[in-house]
Amino acid sequence: MNPYIHKVDFYEPDQMGVVHHSNYIRWFETARIDALDQAGLTYAKMEEDGLFGVTLSVSCEYRRSVRFGQTVEVEPVLTDVDDRFMTIHYIVRDADSKKERATGDSKHCFVGLDGKMLSLKETDPALYDAICALIEK
Amino acid sequence: MNPYIHKVDFYEPDQMGVVHHSNYIRWFETARIDALDQAGLTYAKMEEDGLFGVTLSVSCEYRRSVRFGQTVEVEPVLTDVDDRFMTIHYIVRDADSKKERATGDSKHCFVGLDGKMLSLKETDPALYDAICALIEK
Amino acid sequence: MNPYIHKVDFYEPDQMGVVHHSNYIRWFETARIDALDQAGLTYAKMEEDGLFGVTLSVSCEYRRSVRFGQTVEVEPVLTDVDDRFMTIHYIVRDADSKKERATGDSKHCFVGLDGKMLSLKETDPALYDAICALIEK
Amino acid sequence: MNPYIHKVDFYEPDQMGVVHHSNYIRWFETARIDALDQAGLTYAKMEEDGLFGVTLSVSCEYRRSVRFGQTVEVEPVLTDVDDRFMTIHYIVRDADSKKERATGDSKHCFVGLDGKMLSLKETDPALYDAICALIEK
Repeated sequence: MNPYIHKVDFYEPDQMGVVHHSNYIRWFETARIDALDQAGLTYAKMEEDGLFGVTLSVSCEYRRSVRFGQTVEVEPVLTDVDDRFMTIHYIVRDADSKKERATGDSKHCFVGLDGKMLSLKETDPALYDAICALIEK
Repeated sequence: MNPYIHKVDFYEPDQMGVVHHSNYIRWFETARIDALDQAGLTYAKMEEDGLFGVTLSVSCEYRRSVRFGQTVEVEPVLTDVDDRFMTIHYIVRDADSKKERATGDSKHCFVGLDGKMLSLKETDPALYDAICALIEK
Repeated sequence: MNPYIHKVDFYEPDQMGVVHHSNYIRWFETARIDALDQAGLTYAKMEEDGLFGVTLSVSCEYRRSVRFGQTVEVEPVLTDVDDRFMTIHYIVRDADSKKERATGDSKHCFVGLDGKMLSLKETDPALYDAICALIEK
Repeated sequence: MNPYIHKVDFYEPDQMGVVHHSNYIRWFETARIDALDQAGLTYAKMEEDGLFGVTLSVSCEYRRSVRFGQTVEVEPVLTDVDDRFMTIHYIVRDADSKKERATGDSKHCFVGLDGKMLSLKETDPALYDAICALIEK
């Protein structure tokens, strides 16, 4: 599984010249969707099947700033999954030096078209197994 | 009709210390929705009625930069409307000095739930008349 | 101290029709800057004085979604402060029903123009006392 | 010169399920920075040399919507350059079908550290020649 590689966009740093902290939360999302994609679990397709991911919580610890001109890699690590919840840990590194820039976590559940939380294990056992397989790696 | 008043958010300036140009496009949108709201034409309600605005084009000319700590007012002026298209002109001013910061235009049409363009005049004559009344002011 | 009132912008909800979770992190920031402002501690002025706030960590728990057409109020509560760190808790409520939508926390330090962390107590005792006064309320 | 390839991020579509129109303006910026980069004119380095690009105007015409799950390519074409101004045209295409999604234009000048507009030809003749060479292709 490859990390998500992101070249900092010009509009991402704030007036202090460092990437605004809210953007890391967006990078986490793109990184987890990219990881699902690499595992053959395309999120756009999941939505077509009426399965929607919901973000229940998110957190980020910022260690060193990131600037325009730099490239980061974001590695999402599935740390916990059961039939209803999924927790992912993220490590943001400078793509060149591999030095850590930030870490974070997010917790998710799945809902159907009606917005109600559902058991992934019951609704889509194949997807559930595929996700469980990710954690075992 | 009051202009839309916006205190610059900390995350809006870029690393040059001035509001990133893409944000003006978002201010235009909030200003036109706010103006519709003031005219009693709540956009959230229009959407519930299956009427959706689509942005066909947008432009902005940046005259003087805007910084964090400043407040702008955005005045949307309906410049043209027929049964299918609506054109709006925007003037962004410093809220204190009233000096012009930027101007812009956007062109819109309306579509139904099926995504097909519709005649506002035929679909919702009352809304069409209310919008036409705005231009006559 | 009044909460920060925010009418949801059209561009804030994602394709699921609910405000994208990254925007709450931005609301937190605007709410804490607004609170400082109400306390007479204008952040733009602090920056002119060479004092810059740095976000060390942020977290948010999402309880119920927020949609376009709704207005939220964000109440920042200073929960901890010492000469180097400041922790703020946030409560996001629906402005009409006052029902809780999300809660969160952020931790900050201050740096000077050289980017080095400094003791607020030593650098700007008046500001430090003013911030401490906020926590006692 | 390769176009800028961008996989639509989950947070880019709005509640209508199509990429919010303000994001195209950001794609234009990343595409022009990427093109300069490919030409060996790294924008981050230009900034280190005290040369800053300023956006004077921007426009976009939206032809067909773009959705999550799709990838776009953005081709920036330098259409006009003199010693003070630079105009760029953009074509946004679906990366698979190569069908046009939007087109746009932006106009820029350069300023120094003091924020004053400068003649690129006089300030950095080598850069000016390199940019002129781009237009001749």
